[in-house]
Amino acid sequence: MAKDTRARMLETTARLLQLRGYYGTSLSEILAESGSPRGSLYFHFPGGKDQLVLEATRAAVDETTEWLREALAKAKNPADGVRAYLEGAATALRETDYTFGCPVAPVILDAAGSLEELSDLCREAFEEWVTLLRTSFVEAGVPNRRANALALLVQSALEGLLIIARAYRDVTPLMTVAVELEAVVQAALPPRATRPSRRQSKQPRVQRV
Amino acid sequence: MAKDTRARMLETTARLLQLRGYYGTSLSEILAESGSPRGSLYFHFPGGKDQLVLEATRAAVDETTEWLREALAKAKNPADGVRAYLEGAATALRETDYTFGCPVAPVILDAAGSLEELSDLCREAFEEWVTLLRTSFVEAGVPNRRANALALLVQSALEGLLIIARAYRDVTPLMTVAVELEAVVQAALPPRATRPSRRQSKQPRVQRV
Repeated sequence: MAKDTRARMLETTARLLQLRGYYGTSLSEILAESGSPRGSLYFHFPGGKDQLVLEATRAAVDETTEWLREALAKAKNPADGVRAYLEGAATALRETDYTFGCPVAPVILDAAGSLEELSDLCREAFEEWVTLLRTSFVEAGVPNRRANALALLVQSALEGLLIIARAYRDVTPLMTVAVELEAVVQAALPPRATRPSRRQSKQPRVQRV
Repeated sequence: MAKDTRARMLETTARLLQLRGYYGTSLSEILAESGSPRGSLYFHFPGGKDQLVLEATRAAVDETTEWLREALAKAKNPADGVRAYLEGAATALRETDYTFGCPVAPVILDAAGSLEELSDLCREAFEEWVTLLRTSFVEAGVPNRRANALALLVQSALEGLLIIARAYRDVTPLMTVAVELEAVVQAALPPRATRPSRRQSKQPRVQRV
């Protein structure tokens, strides 16, 4: 079916981009790996490789956004959500034999200067993820400025860890930093969010100095 | 001079790899941008593109290692060193109009699977940087396990920030996280390293509960 071919081409493109970047992903490889006839490329994507790359990247970005949104929504607090976000990446890396990666990092590192629409999309993706993280921290009571710094720290660390884990073919660094980041975010949360069941001290503050 | 041609080819290759990865860097571009005659490639690099890429990456890795070593050696404590390490990256990004980048990240993201020697080199580079950071934390009194997690956090965040800063063409995210990471490392240092001039309390510990 026409729709299946189109979807398969997009999925294959997204996977190859994560693995080899924009320049390392050739049209003939996309066609071969998705089992698509050559004629189908310009039928489904009149804009050629660039249209295919843009659509595939957009779809992969949306998937990541959904995954982050769910990790934060399901978590008992944002610190827990951050850990789930990173642990989800570790699972994906293992399940894909370390071919999984950020949908935008490889194209920023090899084609950011040459395709303006792709650069815009990559920037918007980061903005979206950082905003989701920041909002969850702010809603838990972290002041806006600090929440922004923490959101940038979490997202940048994850980007770096996806690279480091691929280099090592090992998720241990990712799991180690997931625990560290959970603690950093936890420490930034006001006491109510940190320990919901904690008993409040009734002693006057002056006696505790 | 022959030596100049060789050095220029290596410098050009390292710069192009940071900007466009392994597949985005063509031999003809390296020759054109370094002003080298075509014959000089196999004269200086009988192993062709792969030898050139390996040598250029190795030289760029050594430069980064020296830069990190210096940042840590000059700093009054490792927290300060971490901030200097990240601020150095921000300066380099601005000075190169955002073409500066990690010497290994782009090749891990596009060619890690295809060139084993390059993959080994990239892994060794991360290992070296993380070890330098971890050692500086341990020497300042941070327990080994925590020092390892913090070193991984710093290096992965920097890797991610080099991507994010390029996407935004703005070093603000990098500077924001530099301050956050300085604080995280500072908080992990034992009091002596944190505030060298702080007066020690002479009160018995039991009175402070």
